[in-house]
Amino acid sequence: MATSSLLLLLLLISSCIISALLPAASASKTRHFKWEVGYIYASPDCNEKILMGINGQFPGPTIRAKAGDTIHVELKNTLHTEGVVIHWHGIRQFGTPWADGTASISQCAIDPEETFVYRFRVEKAGTYFYHGHYGMQRAAGLYGSLIVDAADGEEEPFRYDGEFNLLLSDWYHQSIYDQMVGLSSNPLRWIGEPQVNASATTGRNPPPTLLINGRGQYNCSLAAHPVEGSNACRPTSKDCAPVVLRVLPNKTYRLRIASTTSLSSLNLAIGNHKMVVVEADGNHVEPFTVGDIDIYSGESYSVLVTTDQNPSSNYWLSVGVRGRKPKTSPALAIVNYRPNSPSKLPESGPPMAPEWNDYNHSKSFSYRILARRGAPKPPQSADRRIVLLNTQNKIDGYTKWSINNVSLALPPTPYLGSMRYRLKNAFDAGMPPENFPPSYDVMRPPPNPNSTQSSNAYVIGLNSTVDVILQNANALAVNVSEIHPWHLHGHEFWVVGYGDGRFGEKEVARFNLKNPPLRNTVVIFPYGWTAIRFVADNPGVWAFHCHIEPHLHMGMGVIFAEGVEHVGKIPREALACGMTAKMLMDKHRP
Amino acid sequence: MATSSLLLLLLLISSCIISALLPAASASKTRHFKWEVGYIYASPDCNEKILMGINGQFPGPTIRAKAGDTIHVELKNTLHTEGVVIHWHGIRQFGTPWADGTASISQCAIDPEETFVYRFRVEKAGTYFYHGHYGMQRAAGLYGSLIVDAADGEEEPFRYDGEFNLLLSDWYHQSIYDQMVGLSSNPLRWIGEPQVNASATTGRNPPPTLLINGRGQYNCSLAAHPVEGSNACRPTSKDCAPVVLRVLPNKTYRLRIASTTSLSSLNLAIGNHKMVVVEADGNHVEPFTVGDIDIYSGESYSVLVTTDQNPSSNYWLSVGVRGRKPKTSPALAIVNYRPNSPSKLPESGPPMAPEWNDYNHSKSFSYRILARRGAPKPPQSADRRIVLLNTQNKIDGYTKWSINNVSLALPPTPYLGSMRYRLKNAFDAGMPPENFPPSYDVMRPPPNPNSTQSSNAYVIGLNSTVDVILQNANALAVNVSEIHPWHLHGHEFWVVGYGDGRFGEKEVARFNLKNPPLRNTVVIFPYGWTAIRFVADNPGVWAFHCHIEPHLHMGMGVIFAEGVEHVGKIPREALACGMTAKMLMDKHRP
Repeated sequence: MATSSLLLLLLLISSCIISALLPAASASKTRHFKWEVGYIYASPDCNEKILMGINGQFPGPTIRAKAGDTIHVELKNTLHTEGVVIHWHGIRQFGTPWADGTASISQCAIDPEETFVYRFRVEKAGTYFYHGHYGMQRAAGLYGSLIVDAADGEEEPFRYDGEFNLLLSDWYHQSIYDQMVGLSSNPLRWIGEPQVNASATTGRNPPPTLLINGRGQYNCSLAAHPVEGSNACRPTSKDCAPVVLRVLPNKTYRLRIASTTSLSSLNLAIGNHKMVVVEADGNHVEPFTVGDIDIYSGESYSVLVTTDQNPSSNYWLSVGVRGRKPKTSPALAIVNYRPNSPSKLPESGPPMAPEWNDYNHSKSFSYRILARRGAPKPPQSADRRIVLLNTQNKIDGYTKWSINNVSLALPPTPYLGSMRYRLKNAFDAGMPPENFPPSYDVMRPPPNPNSTQSSNAYVIGLNSTVDVILQNANALAVNVSEIHPWHLHGHEFWVVGYGDGRFGEKEVARFNLKNPPLRNTVVIFPYGWTAIRFVADNPGVWAFHCHIEPHLHMGMGVIFAEGVEHVGKIPREALACGMTAKMLMDKHRP
Repeated sequence: MATSSLLLLLLLISSCIISALLPAASASKTRHFKWEVGYIYASPDCNEKILMGINGQFPGPTIRAKAGDTIHVELKNTLHTEGVVIHWHGIRQFGTPWADGTASISQCAIDPEETFVYRFRVEKAGTYFYHGHYGMQRAAGLYGSLIVDAADGEEEPFRYDGEFNLLLSDWYHQSIYDQMVGLSSNPLRWIGEPQVNASATTGRNPPPTLLINGRGQYNCSLAAHPVEGSNACRPTSKDCAPVVLRVLPNKTYRLRIASTTSLSSLNLAIGNHKMVVVEADGNHVEPFTVGDIDIYSGESYSVLVTTDQNPSSNYWLSVGVRGRKPKTSPALAIVNYRPNSPSKLPESGPPMAPEWNDYNHSKSFSYRILARRGAPKPPQSADRRIVLLNTQNKIDGYTKWSINNVSLALPPTPYLGSMRYRLKNAFDAGMPPENFPPSYDVMRPPPNPNSTQSSNAYVIGLNSTVDVILQNANALAVNVSEIHPWHLHGHEFWVVGYGDGRFGEKEVARFNLKNPPLRNTVVIFPYGWTAIRFVADNPGVWAFHCHIEPHLHMGMGVIFAEGVEHVGKIPREALACGMTAKMLMDKHRP
């Protein structure tokens, strides 16, 4: 007895010593969440609709963790007939490719009443978010914030006194089922457009409402029709009351801003205040000061704002639309200098957004985003270059988006499982094209608009360095070329160049290899190109796609597969559909 | 060489002789169908909405076969994120219980882009239909007709010169997703009721439109506002033009009438014409003459109509609502005596339906339905009696329907697979109650409205004879008791008795064992009971439930399992979800 007690004591002492000797990183935690996804009633823009919430909340609960932590989400699907998945946007999922939350790619959709465990490590501090990645479920409201703070003992390279988190989105009154039927119709019915055969009761599809943290005002502007003056814009429930940022004078605040819009490109500004951009997609950038920022779907930023203006006034924070002629009023939040009342309306109107089509303004913002001094540099050369031409096309009369004339049609069996088990016929064989014909004129509509659908994938050598040139072009209509924000799963990439017109070989020598920013999402401007470089060091299958929900639905994406033979044991639930389920079940059936 | 040729010749000759000797039944065919289920735009009541169609059609294509044929439907799910199944209503599925098309019961829902083959034999001539049986997909428009003619060489015991098929339904403008959220809310929001927090844009939920063959007029009556007189009711597309029955004078027509309404109980009549009822749910009944028929969701009838009226006029066929105060105009079709123009409006108005709450009228119709002379009689006694009390209840504040105080919660793993493989914990253990307390007063609201949810099932001895007494009761509100049409899968049953108030032991002696009608659906009237008898001769797992879609969604059903150990090889696709997939996959995983 005495001996064993002594042993126990020694063990306890030694374990304390070991703990004390371990570096701070050992303080990392596993953070557990139990979520249920289901439809709920909500009035995000004062109009009651059903939307997809998590645990009855919209937007879903914010995850807050520290770099190095493990996130463990038990996700139960309580939708009645639909599958669901959740993608953790900006998280690399290194070693856990089955937790990337992409239906048809990384896992089988979670069946109604079933649970899937997303367990993954958050490596790097930053502003992230999560969202549905099956059909158009993101546009049904399935999203929320994921904020990763610096690990204990680590520090961000900038100081602030407080912070606010702003998750931006756009909200359509038409159900996603309606939207999907319209997008899959011939002729195309674009979301938010007047319906061709609109009846008396359905009317025209209303324009979207811009939301800040899930709140906005439909078809009215709080600024033009202040709450006190008009019933039209009086928030009818707390669901749609404007967000208030309560600040103290002469402090510096970090605003975390992420956009999970279905469609809209956005611009954000605060009346009278400048912003210092310090973070983009979870990476520090060399600080620079602006009056407004552009933010495209899939991007995130942190900006520092100093409350150095007249403290007797409040100020508008305004979010407007870029790149499409806006049909909607800006979303507004109130920067409330305490001790003013938050309901005291700002003395000056909301800041004017730049003209929706002032692309020079947008480009100059994007071009200013550069890696913070001391950030890791990209490899100085690439092993492979893939040029991706973005075109709008027709397949059997249906409008699609294509990449090198291939419109992505996702297969029912997720790639990760079918590639890991080397299943034949689970997706289209052969590699998609690496380039497009030299004769193609990106400044004009496609001479032959016909395209093809395929589920084929780019197989990339593990640990190779890849350059991707995203080449924009004219859409089907003359003089139309749209903005596309491209998002890469499983990796970050360096943005090594931008340009107007067609990319040429000579541009390679001009690539910025000195201080290109690391991102997970980057935009191509109308008629322009964007060059990125990344190292394919994460075994798995990864989507790379336009983050505009209807564009992805219409085929605007590609699949990158790398080192799938090195992927660890895929959880059974991720394989329990299609040909992987068939293969594994058949071997056993009595 | 010579010997083998001779052998071949002999073989050929003998096979010809064998063919010639086979009975006519050998002429039965396999009828192949290739279907795709997906959302489409349609204007069933002149208001464009999305609904679930098959091969772009609404209602789905009519299947026409002969008794003894095999139906082979390759069903591809082209919905984007939802599973789907199709139930073949009234088909016994003897030997093919996995083809019954009930999610959570007979099979795993078919995933998007996947195909399931429904292959089953249609045994008996009659008027049937098919419909979705997952969530509330039937109410989304997923249904169509299935007509089985007498086998070659067989004859129906009545004559007619022509026939028409009328599939009746009700159509809500609110999406099924909205409806399901409302039904699952606390407080309950009933479909078609004004919304509690209805906003300016969503307004009140409109009442349903009654449809005949998928066509109706919303919020107007063609008769009150004739097509020529008013824009309000002018059909705006062929989707909503009234059905025209083109007849010749002095002929006899068979009208096949089936109801797949989500909610509404219906009454059908034809101006000036009598109807002779000859078939109910695929069984011949002793012919009787009526001026109108009641038809509840899940039922089908054939009636004979002789065109013996003034041939210079056309006549209205009118379908109205029973059992609930109607908020909607009747659905109308035109009986067009040729050579009159079909657009010539009938001289007299549509026939007046009986008062919605004239239950005596309804009962007298139901009581007149008896088996045709010579029909098979039921066993003269039963091995088991199960009494099922129908009550409306509360669970954690949510409104539910319960049977013997159990509200059915379907499990994610279908019973057929989990029972066949004897999986533990796939559904709740234990048998649900066989009766309810003698003290329960069926004429008053439940003294304790709290109920429980369960997925437990009644296990029934194979080939045993079972009596089920469906006992109606007062709902939650005082003086409310509703009509419930109960539908049994996998069997037909004899309706051996009806009564008012509480069923008592003495009623057994009064059961009609002489000529009770065989049915698959039967109604219980407010505050009444209905007794049925069936032989549990079909190995499988079978739903028995109220055919009102929202009631089933709220738990109004039970599960019968019989001889599951005798079930043949279940197709893998029917098992590829939940615990059956898990069990079969785990055994094999490397």
